[in-house]
Amino acid sequence: MTALDFRVTATDGAARAGVITTSRGEIRTPAFMPLGTAGAVKALTVDQVRDAGADIILGNTYHLMLRPGPERVARLGGLHAFMRWPRPILTDSGGFQVMSLAKISKVTEDAVTFRSHIDGARHVLTPERSIEIQADLLHADIVMQLDQCLALPAEAPRVADAMRLSARWAARCKAAFGTRERQALFGIQQGGLSEPLRRESAERLVELGFDGYAIGGLAVGEGHGAMCEALDYAPALLPADRPRYLMGVGKPADLVEAVWRGVDMFDCVLPTRSGRHGQAWTWEGPVNLKNARFAEDLEPLDPTIDCPASRDYSKAYLHHLVKAGEILGQVLLSWHNVAFFENLMASLRGAIAESRLGAFRSDFHARQS
Amino acid sequence: MTALDFRVTATDGAARAGVITTSRGEIRTPAFMPLGTAGAVKALTVDQVRDAGADIILGNTYHLMLRPGPERVARLGGLHAFMRWPRPILTDSGGFQVMSLAKISKVTEDAVTFRSHIDGARHVLTPERSIEIQADLLHADIVMQLDQCLALPAEAPRVADAMRLSARWAARCKAAFGTRERQALFGIQQGGLSEPLRRESAERLVELGFDGYAIGGLAVGEGHGAMCEALDYAPALLPADRPRYLMGVGKPADLVEAVWRGVDMFDCVLPTRSGRHGQAWTWEGPVNLKNARFAEDLEPLDPTIDCPASRDYSKAYLHHLVKAGEILGQVLLSWHNVAFFENLMASLRGAIAESRLGAFRSDFHARQS
Repeated sequence: MTALDFRVTATDGAARAGVITTSRGEIRTPAFMPLGTAGAVKALTVDQVRDAGADIILGNTYHLMLRPGPERVARLGGLHAFMRWPRPILTDSGGFQVMSLAKISKVTEDAVTFRSHIDGARHVLTPERSIEIQADLLHADIVMQLDQCLALPAEAPRVADAMRLSARWAARCKAAFGTRERQALFGIQQGGLSEPLRRESAERLVELGFDGYAIGGLAVGEGHGAMCEALDYAPALLPADRPRYLMGVGKPADLVEAVWRGVDMFDCVLPTRSGRHGQAWTWEGPVNLKNARFAEDLEPLDPTIDCPASRDYSKAYLHHLVKAGEILGQVLLSWHNVAFFENLMASLRGAIAESRLGAFRSDFHARQS
Repeated sequence: MTALDFRVTATDGAARAGVITTSRGEIRTPAFMPLGTAGAVKALTVDQVRDAGADIILGNTYHLMLRPGPERVARLGGLHAFMRWPRPILTDSGGFQVMSLAKISKVTEDAVTFRSHIDGARHVLTPERSIEIQADLLHADIVMQLDQCLALPAEAPRVADAMRLSARWAARCKAAFGTRERQALFGIQQGGLSEPLRRESAERLVELGFDGYAIGGLAVGEGHGAMCEALDYAPALLPADRPRYLMGVGKPADLVEAVWRGVDMFDCVLPTRSGRHGQAWTWEGPVNLKNARFAEDLEPLDPTIDCPASRDYSKAYLHHLVKAGEILGQVLLSWHNVAFFENLMASLRGAIAESRLGAFRSDFHARQS
């Protein structure tokens, strides 16, 4: 498979820095992908997203299949043209949102059936349909297999069943995807907090062969400590020469710990969702701009980040915008947060390249309050 | 008075094109001022506002005196520094919003007393306090006198009383303002739809002497036709060598008619408010992007306008954003609308400079549907 070239340029312990090359451009790893949920990174223009440092964004199959519909996106030229983002896009399979957002969902061997949270309409998502939506209609650069993701804690037999169903769906997705010159397909490791199940999952995926491998089924209720324990073994079970993507993660501290353990890619709703709720992420931890202590604080959120929202506006002004319910407050805080997350990834890449990730990690946790 | 230089560079009938020079930069006239109500042009960054073509924005004394409070804005360096707009700012006096937004308001010879629509707190606004807020605390480049503005229709004696109270307040504002090197003070003509009252108002203001003159008390319920009739005489009653500012106006058709009759400056909430509600202004009139006919329309709103929101995004995408309730839809439509209004003013300036405003006006009305 050559649709996706992955070159590791530096390692530091288990951590790797590298570059993924796609037909639509390079992705510096470790990479954070802002969420372009329903065809937009919420509150931001694509130029703001790019200026914040993002190389790739994520599109949600679930949201786009409900509205505006994948056939319509295809008629409008695909997701890149539709939202004016010419760089790489990874789409998820739709499975996770079906189980977390849809009104009713039912999983069988063949498919997941659900009702839309928007209008209650019934939809069926098979592994083959998920691939068709992502690869043929949305034109994603990186396509994810359909999997079954459980909330944790879950009983052991259910976790094993979901992992094995996901493995069988991985084979169907791979068959449906075929071989493509300009698009890549990722398999998703499942198995909850069980090392044997994660090992079996990885082995089954590797036997099929994918362009990259995701770690699914974490950050679903198990907590930071349990997630870190799973990450002590889960990434190493996946091929070292392919990107490893930890889905739906996370807070800055999660990102640092996962990179430390060998993860290369991330996505999370956090920077934009926090931004819409008045919260800014900083090297000292999250701060709520609504807090009265910022009312006359003339300092910017972070003068070292090359983003107008981080560098040029005072906290006093952001405080005012949040208090007054101004949309501009949501825009600026979303923008800053994406820039902060991208800045964190750049800092991690730099620390790996200079073999000082251990010190960076200690300093990072000491500063986060 | 030299705080504000006004140079008429071309005339076409009653219409004038020119340049106002302030210590913070030039304002090309006829000028449209986007509303920076509560310290932000709603949903837009100042860079987007500037890129859309605005030379000057308006700040609302009423909103800013309630939140964050003018003394706080002063401590934070004034309104320009607070919101990061280094160019000219005109502030209104607060009078209009007190009467339209405050819970309870009472006008006496001395002051207007009101309760905040935010928290019910009692405030007193005298002519002197309005000048202090605008000139000394917010640091406005153009300061407006406090006036009494009535909704129309209103009984003749009430209109006359309000005009004469406004004239007495104009004198108090002028005394409080004194002489300033870098800030200008505008008087406001009142008198409803009565030519004799507007004449008396203008004479009283001119006797006091102001840097510019506003036409107040229009666009308050009288309708486009009645407003145009008032504009047949109201601007000509004001000095030709000073800018004339029609407050709170208006729709594109209102702007064209007022410029035709000799008005130089405008402000209106319309472009940003419409944008937040899915409406785009175009040369063919307003369009609602929610309409299903745009669902697969790949054309941009206006490829001739040098603004990303007008030129680069398809109507299909804007339709999707509006339908999905995405903040980005509000941002892009607000941005386009401000750019459209600024583009209209630039077109009017060009038509005046080339003595073809009559033809422009006919074409404009023929296209607007």
